[in-house]
Amino acid sequence: MTNTCIACAIATGQSPAHIIHQNDRIICFLDHAPINPGHILICPRAHLADLTDLPDDLLAEIATTAKAMAQLLKDKLGCDGVSLLQNNGAFNDLGHFHLHVFPRYAGDGFGWTNAQLKAVQPTSKEALALLALIRLGRKELVDGKSADGIKFLDEMDD
Amino acid sequence: MTNTCIACAIATGQSPAHIIHQNDRIICFLDHAPINPGHILICPRAHLADLTDLPDDLLAEIATTAKAMAQLLKDKLGCDGVSLLQNNGAFNDLGHFHLHVFPRYAGDGFGWTNAQLKAVQPTSKEALALLALIRLGRKELVDGKSADGIKFLDEMDD
Repeated sequence: MTNTCIACAIATGQSPAHIIHQNDRIICFLDHAPINPGHILICPRAHLADLTDLPDDLLAEIATTAKAMAQLLKDKLGCDGVSLLQNNGAFNDLGHFHLHVFPRYAGDGFGWTNAQLKAVQPTSKEALALLALIRLGRKELVDGKSADGIKFLDEMDD
Repeated sequence: MTNTCIACAIATGQSPAHIIHQNDRIICFLDHAPINPGHILICPRAHLADLTDLPDDLLAEIATTAKAMAQLLKDKLGCDGVSLLQNNGAFNDLGHFHLHVFPRYAGDGFGWTNAQLKAVQPTSKEALALLALIRLGRKELVDGKSADGIKFLDEMDD
């Protein structure tokens, strides 16, 4: 943990939180500023920042826990749906991995905006250039230059 | 697959898409209306709608693939971050599970809005009632009444 991380402080009991579920690897608690009531954050106990920092087994546990939390929200709150959000890099405002899982209701007003959306629609040529760039990276991953634990099975790949 | 599902049509090659990665279980392709260029959708090939419909092993593969895609976007596009979004229930506009993974840039204007946000901030009493409700559901899951594959390890739970 770090001295200044609020997720670490909650995980160690130094800061209060409404805890939904925890074990020695993860902790789930209510967001203090919910998009809708019942908004849950799922964090690893370890101070890991981004998706790409998580070992695969921890990531799998976080994903199956998100499924369980979504089932809880559906069953107990009678919501119309559940949404997940997770921000990395410069947009990770805690500096500690946190997956948002929150109930949704028709007319709840939640949505996303992008001021640049029309400006960034790629042309077909740009899309193909982008695809080539991304596929080049994927090829490097397939060829074994990937970070630990990132593997692909390409039995059907062209 | 279903006859009217666009994700099924892409997965079977009946509709064109810029495919980044695929195998016999999942397919990753560029969103036709990207939040930013490089916006990828990860779908199971099987016509499963929501997070809660995915078997744990498929969910784990989708999660580790999202990690790999996030690494690709970081490495190849030099973005400032990567965000993930996933909508279920009434807010799943394809009717087929799809996880959004997209690059982010400082000043890209992406954000989320909630018209009700101030209205739905729970009081402490409401938060505690909500917590009791959710924990009740969690208890049922722990007691074995969960859907298949949803399990908790509670070695540190209070």
